[in-house]
Amino acid sequence: DMPNPTLFTEMDTLQQDGDELEWKESARWVKFEEKVEDGGERWSKPHVSTLSLHSLFELRTCLQTGTVVLDLEGYSLPQIVDEIIERQIDEGMLSPDLREKISFVLLRKHRHQTKKPIHRSLADMGKASGGGNTLHILNIDMINCSHALCCFTGHAHSRSMNDIADTLSTDQLRNKFMKKIPRDAEASNVLVGEVDFLDKPFVAFVRLAQATTLGGLTEVPVPTRFLFILLGPTGKAKSYNQIGRAIATLMVDDLFSDVAYKARDREDLIAGIDEFLDEVIVLPPGEWDPKIRIEPPKKVPTADKRQMIIQLCGNSSGGHSGSQHSVCVFVRFCGGLFLDIKRKLPWFPSDFYEGFHIQSISAVLFIYLGCITNAITFGGLLGDATDNYQGVMESFLGTALSGTVFCMFSGQPLIILSSTGPILIFEKLLFEFSKNNGIDYMELRLWIGIHSCIQCFLLVATDASYIIKYMTRFTEEGFSSLISFIFISDAIKKMVSHTQYYPINTDFKPDYVTAYKCECLPCLSPSPYSSTSKTLNITDLDWSQLSKKECVKYGGSLVGNTCKYVPDLALMSFILFFGTYSMTVSLKKFKFSRYFPTKLRKLISDFSIFMAIMTFVGLDRLIGLKTPKLIVPTEFKPTRPDRGWIVLPFGKNPWWVYLASFVPALLVTILIFMDQQISAVIVNRKENKLRKGCGYHLDLFWVGVLMAVCSFLGLPWYVAATVISIAHIDSLKMESESSAPGEQPQFLGVREQRLTGILVFVLTGVSIFLAPILQFIPMPVLYGVFLYMGVASLSGIQFWERIKLYMMPSKYQPDFPFLRHVPLRRVHLFTLVQIICLTVLWVLKSTVLAILFPVMILGLLVVRKMLDMVFSQHDLAWIDDILPGKDKKDKKKKGDKDDTKKKDKKKGRADDSKDKVRNVKIYCHQLADLEQKKPC
Amino acid sequence: DMPNPTLFTEMDTLQQDGDELEWKESARWVKFEEKVEDGGERWSKPHVSTLSLHSLFELRTCLQTGTVVLDLEGYSLPQIVDEIIERQIDEGMLSPDLREKISFVLLRKHRHQTKKPIHRSLADMGKASGGGNTLHILNIDMINCSHALCCFTGHAHSRSMNDIADTLSTDQLRNKFMKKIPRDAEASNVLVGEVDFLDKPFVAFVRLAQATTLGGLTEVPVPTRFLFILLGPTGKAKSYNQIGRAIATLMVDDLFSDVAYKARDREDLIAGIDEFLDEVIVLPPGEWDPKIRIEPPKKVPTADKRQMIIQLCGNSSGGHSGSQHSVCVFVRFCGGLFLDIKRKLPWFPSDFYEGFHIQSISAVLFIYLGCITNAITFGGLLGDATDNYQGVMESFLGTALSGTVFCMFSGQPLIILSSTGPILIFEKLLFEFSKNNGIDYMELRLWIGIHSCIQCFLLVATDASYIIKYMTRFTEEGFSSLISFIFISDAIKKMVSHTQYYPINTDFKPDYVTAYKCECLPCLSPSPYSSTSKTLNITDLDWSQLSKKECVKYGGSLVGNTCKYVPDLALMSFILFFGTYSMTVSLKKFKFSRYFPTKLRKLISDFSIFMAIMTFVGLDRLIGLKTPKLIVPTEFKPTRPDRGWIVLPFGKNPWWVYLASFVPALLVTILIFMDQQISAVIVNRKENKLRKGCGYHLDLFWVGVLMAVCSFLGLPWYVAATVISIAHIDSLKMESESSAPGEQPQFLGVREQRLTGILVFVLTGVSIFLAPILQFIPMPVLYGVFLYMGVASLSGIQFWERIKLYMMPSKYQPDFPFLRHVPLRRVHLFTLVQIICLTVLWVLKSTVLAILFPVMILGLLVVRKMLDMVFSQHDLAWIDDILPGKDKKDKKKKGDKDDTKKKDKKKGRADDSKDKVRNVKIYCHQLADLEQKKPC
Repeated sequence: DMPNPTLFTEMDTLQQDGDELEWKESARWVKFEEKVEDGGERWSKPHVSTLSLHSLFELRTCLQTGTVVLDLEGYSLPQIVDEIIERQIDEGMLSPDLREKISFVLLRKHRHQTKKPIHRSLADMGKASGGGNTLHILNIDMINCSHALCCFTGHAHSRSMNDIADTLSTDQLRNKFMKKIPRDAEASNVLVGEVDFLDKPFVAFVRLAQATTLGGLTEVPVPTRFLFILLGPTGKAKSYNQIGRAIATLMVDDLFSDVAYKARDREDLIAGIDEFLDEVIVLPPGEWDPKIRIEPPKKVPTADKRQMIIQLCGNSSGGHSGSQHSVCVFVRFCGGLFLDIKRKLPWFPSDFYEGFHIQSISAVLFIYLGCITNAITFGGLLGDATDNYQGVMESFLGTALSGTVFCMFSGQPLIILSSTGPILIFEKLLFEFSKNNGIDYMELRLWIGIHSCIQCFLLVATDASYIIKYMTRFTEEGFSSLISFIFISDAIKKMVSHTQYYPINTDFKPDYVTAYKCECLPCLSPSPYSSTSKTLNITDLDWSQLSKKECVKYGGSLVGNTCKYVPDLALMSFILFFGTYSMTVSLKKFKFSRYFPTKLRKLISDFSIFMAIMTFVGLDRLIGLKTPKLIVPTEFKPTRPDRGWIVLPFGKNPWWVYLASFVPALLVTILIFMDQQISAVIVNRKENKLRKGCGYHLDLFWVGVLMAVCSFLGLPWYVAATVISIAHIDSLKMESESSAPGEQPQFLGVREQRLTGILVFVLTGVSIFLAPILQFIPMPVLYGVFLYMGVASLSGIQFWERIKLYMMPSKYQPDFPFLRHVPLRRVHLFTLVQIICLTVLWVLKSTVLAILFPVMILGLLVVRKMLDMVFSQHDLAWIDDILPGKDKKDKKKKGDKDDTKKKDKKKGRADDSKDKVRNVKIYCHQLADLEQKKPC
Repeated sequence: DMPNPTLFTEMDTLQQDGDELEWKESARWVKFEEKVEDGGERWSKPHVSTLSLHSLFELRTCLQTGTVVLDLEGYSLPQIVDEIIERQIDEGMLSPDLREKISFVLLRKHRHQTKKPIHRSLADMGKASGGGNTLHILNIDMINCSHALCCFTGHAHSRSMNDIADTLSTDQLRNKFMKKIPRDAEASNVLVGEVDFLDKPFVAFVRLAQATTLGGLTEVPVPTRFLFILLGPTGKAKSYNQIGRAIATLMVDDLFSDVAYKARDREDLIAGIDEFLDEVIVLPPGEWDPKIRIEPPKKVPTADKRQMIIQLCGNSSGGHSGSQHSVCVFVRFCGGLFLDIKRKLPWFPSDFYEGFHIQSISAVLFIYLGCITNAITFGGLLGDATDNYQGVMESFLGTALSGTVFCMFSGQPLIILSSTGPILIFEKLLFEFSKNNGIDYMELRLWIGIHSCIQCFLLVATDASYIIKYMTRFTEEGFSSLISFIFISDAIKKMVSHTQYYPINTDFKPDYVTAYKCECLPCLSPSPYSSTSKTLNITDLDWSQLSKKECVKYGGSLVGNTCKYVPDLALMSFILFFGTYSMTVSLKKFKFSRYFPTKLRKLISDFSIFMAIMTFVGLDRLIGLKTPKLIVPTEFKPTRPDRGWIVLPFGKNPWWVYLASFVPALLVTILIFMDQQISAVIVNRKENKLRKGCGYHLDLFWVGVLMAVCSFLGLPWYVAATVISIAHIDSLKMESESSAPGEQPQFLGVREQRLTGILVFVLTGVSIFLAPILQFIPMPVLYGVFLYMGVASLSGIQFWERIKLYMMPSKYQPDFPFLRHVPLRRVHLFTLVQIICLTVLWVLKSTVLAILFPVMILGLLVVRKMLDMVFSQHDLAWIDDILPGKDKKDKKKKGDKDDTKKKDKKKGRADDSKDKVRNVKIYCHQLADLEQKKPC
């Protein structure tokens, strides 16, 4: 059946202002309580309604003795009030002569907590000086106003029987709070107050047959369904208030509101309260100050879960919350590729139109800057390694081409392709090998690419991506931390090399400025290896006018104590580097500050990197030092003049090379496969809540195709880049606008689309034309961005959290779920194994063995497999994930655990259904696993 | 009567390990609950015990039906157990054949949650590999060990009737947790478990006549007073656990434990539970997840307060928490000085021995560095202003002399004397006036000092310090923010002037290094005003060997494009400045991080400034640039050679000058008086919790004396420095070591003593001999410290918090008490008035009018007085403090407020005692005021 509408509850209390009575809004609930502060001008923060037990019992008594009218046909407040009073008189609970008085009180006007008009603040000022005489005249004016002028504004102070407006006021209709209330919501109104003519309380609980808008009753234009009235003798206002809060809290409770909607009689309501009482959480008075307002929790149990717990008679077993990445793989032989396509095709149009969002702009800018920095860095390095066969130009072109194609057609368009370290090392070794053995490098490389492409296709066809099932958190974290460390260390290394390139003259004494110079002196003996020296008459040169480079060129020697120093640049680079990094971090954090509205803060946080870059580019311009800038190739031609854009497959190498290149290709394939799939696993993590599924096979297929294409064009090879891909995902994260006040915004998922990726790479391609703009960006700023990327991608990793545990005394350690269930020293041991593995990898990576990097990742899988022998499956389930092969065994283990649980409880548990529910819980994440596997 | 001892409660549950039964500790309470985590290896964080209502009711039933034995004479557990069982059998609640079984179960050994021996972790490893075979042998070994070897260690696995050790084990005696339990504590033990031989629960509540150590029962060597036993049929372990937690929570409740100690019978205990239930705070199940562990609150209501609330039937009125600084002044004419001495004298010895603490070292270092920086800065400026009549040497000597004397004898030795801006401006104007009118500056200054000293004595004698009663938060905050801003702006100004002193050559192109030089060329026309040019033959000079200064000296001209530039120093200075500041801030914050034990963190935080200085001095040394360093005078002689150490009062000026100097002296007196007393008010703030009282009159007396002395010696005048004094106090703050786990450490007060102050100034005096060490400190580092001092002294000011409110949307604003009670726009208006006042002061201070600064502070008092007309007394009571003159009116106002309160409640409140208690509350801070006034 239909779910009940959400209830908005408003509590109004009876107030005497002068000799006038009115109902004043004192609190409201959508889910949590918001109270009108004592000052009467301010809504409190939404907080958990802390009730006193006493008030709940009093409420129970009220409902037992008062009038309960269910499904009343009501169309206006006067009519409803009449009906209630009539019933009470009929039942002999009220003497008929009070009819008029009660009706009068209940139909007083309702003052809602909306924004006050400006003239009130002047009136306040007048009031404040009541003691003095200065502003007295103004004061009287104000009073006159509120009696005469204000009569016309609809807030009539008349003494008629019915003060309540029949229709909605503009204040109500304009109330912005409406957007916090779901569309189909209904209202429940709680009215409590003390009057002097009653000697016992007048209580009524009314449910209307149809939700009806009762004029000025509710703050917002929401129809009223429930009405709770409590009028009592004077002297107990506080207690009435508490009862009012109690019923209001009950009304917004999912389970009780259900009871209230469905109740057939008074007893059903009482039973609802009892059920509620059975579930309440009690805080001991000595350990908690009732005045503290409790912040709404991040998550509250859902109604369904609570229902289940009630059925289980309070048997709540802590659910397994260890995260499990989605092993989204088709295990059967063949067909994975087609299923990938079948799954991704329906999303294809939405992959484009979902990209139109302001957030995409910041994502594109961020990732674009990351990509070109990477392209330039790797381009430069590749140029060095291959004697400019592949240089910055090829790097730009390759990045643009591969990236665009991949983002357009791949299975997971959130992945960003990039050159990676292992490939760089492979190219370096390959080039050296070819040079030493007289083999043509470009042709050999082409054949390796072709072989590798075919091998990739084979891997796709055989659904070899199955292996990623063995990549648990252990492997995944090891890999991604390693990549992050490389990013961080690269950024710092680059900065250090800058400092060495611009040495500081630390002996400089400002006063002896006259002693510092650097002169170009002609060499006494003509330089034998300077070709220009022969054509030019050296003695004709004005040596003192030559620049440093020219001087060296013409064989002069630089003499002087400043020649090897460059002032300011090293320190300025450091300031730019560190400034960009820290400003990005601070602006990112700004999202969690209290200043400015959420939207502005989110904007600042989203564009933090862009703003930091702009700031420090501006600072650099302002100071005007010649810091090293980003240099982008401006002409479209190969870096090395003696190579064209197409590499021909035959003619330069002997035939056997074409076949033998199968062997190095195998290494490349493993390398590409591992790099690509681990990055993909990290991107497809369950935590990222991706909806559109994964496409490991399709991804690998396109990487293979691009390998071949790039080889033919003589461009570098590309593969998924972990850090930039994570940055891409992070910059596209969506959060819910919080609905009810106090509810936490939920992470909804990632803006999955192809647009940002395509734009990034198209921009990379046209960067050649953007050179005039890009040349203002100092390199240290970009290294700062690099550093940020590395650090940011570390921060989400559990491994990193576990490393921090080493330095924390156990009482300060955060309350991670795994810490509750796994002994600390087992956690430490696990972390230590990871650290050792990482160190080994790091050391190997710094040597020539780096080429074996993919094989070492496979080694991680083996280490993880061995951990099964050291750690219990229970511990691993909490710290890591359980390997798929262990499934059966794992179930057995879990069965054992059940047995011990059974021992704990021994007998008295005949009910089978309980067991079933508990088993469902225990196996739920395995079920979730199965479900994850289905779509792929 | 004597207060009851604190109760330590331990809950042990019955566990079956193999075929052995044992009691395993599952939770403990000192004040909050600590649970043994599911992993069984770890104490949870202390948290508020969230109970279910159900368990409390079940506990109530248990106590109603079970055995309650009060004041049992018990000496050992077996005897106590026997007694209980006997009673149950006597009352027919237990069949005699169960005697043995129950006794057996209750005397099983207790396993406490203490640190596990190392071999267990190996055993765990063995267990983990239970599936495999590799470590199987080791595993068996372990099991053997625990059966054979471990028998000798006292953990005997025997099957005897009594498993419990009679004496305390070493584990118990060595338990470090003991230090968290007060000395006189007693234990209450809760034992719950399920057994298969019972068909209805066996419940006993025992109070021993004497607290007795019952062997291995309790984790710590604390004698047991209470014992709660619940054994029940199997199948309801969870429920028994909850009941156990309920009684444990009750036992640590202040009020219930009192009931438990004094109960005469079962009914008293039941009544205690009912009282507890009446007070409990209830959280609705839909708004809170029962699984969330609630962090202990900052403050819990004390037992007395709760008692009062119970008596008031829940009438809890929010206490006025607006802070009120202690106006510690004697209002009667004359005698204030003697009362000051009388009050301070008894503390005199403790003022010295209380200084011996590690914290003092960091305080001394911090304040010392602040003081010498100040002495050098002001010394330099004074030297410029007075043509070196008072220079850095005089500044050092004066600071040392005045500071030592003041810290030794003053009323408030936490105040640090220093030169201040207004005095500097006064000296400047005075010097110019004397120079222009041919009056001897030093003699004039001496007479002003003498007059001012006499005027100060007059102010002391007439108890003029009464005026500070009018210094509410408004004035105080205005003054201290202004001083903080001056500190911050001075630090930044100094840094900017540095950058200008070391200009950066922004046009430098690294490649054209050969084009940069600066040469000293001889002037073609001999310089007419160079005296040395006559004695030296200019043409003899090797001009190219001259330094910049020499070149200028000999009349040469500097030619070249690098002459006006200094490389690196500006940027390096900036890095040092900003680095010192940010490192200090980060290290200060480190106190609140989770890493490392509290003590280490506190040490790091205390020494943060020292560590930051050392780090950046080190960095500076490492890079080795010639950054500007701290230069301390090394010889003991007046800065100007033509003045001596004593200024003679007569002989240089005409006689009327001696009399006329009365007028400028008046200005100086007002200046000194205001500066001194406002700083003293800020230091004596109630928030600082000073115990030793204040001494406004005594302070002023000594400032007067030092005025005269310094005038005779020709040293600068000194007065209390707000920012450094606040820094002094901050560095001496004491916090309680948290007693019960989870309890927040409380701010206890300030280490009030004279030692740190004296040491600081003695060190300042001997700094002349410390020059070889001090010369390593770069000035930018010290400016960084300045900046930190300014920012840190702003952070505690409410005014600053209110400024931040402008930028916060109201829903994100922190829950300040004044925001609950005062409309936001009134708060904003108040802040705006403060901002305007400050701006006016700031502008005036930057002009010559700065000399009228003290008069302007008086202006602030007038503005505050006028605010009385704009703001209601109610609002002012929350945002500011109420002026003393308003006391009567205020009471009247408060009376009005009472009236409205009475209207709210109208009737039904005949009990006079209630009124009394409420009135006590309402007037309590006025009472507190009166008490504050008494001791002075």
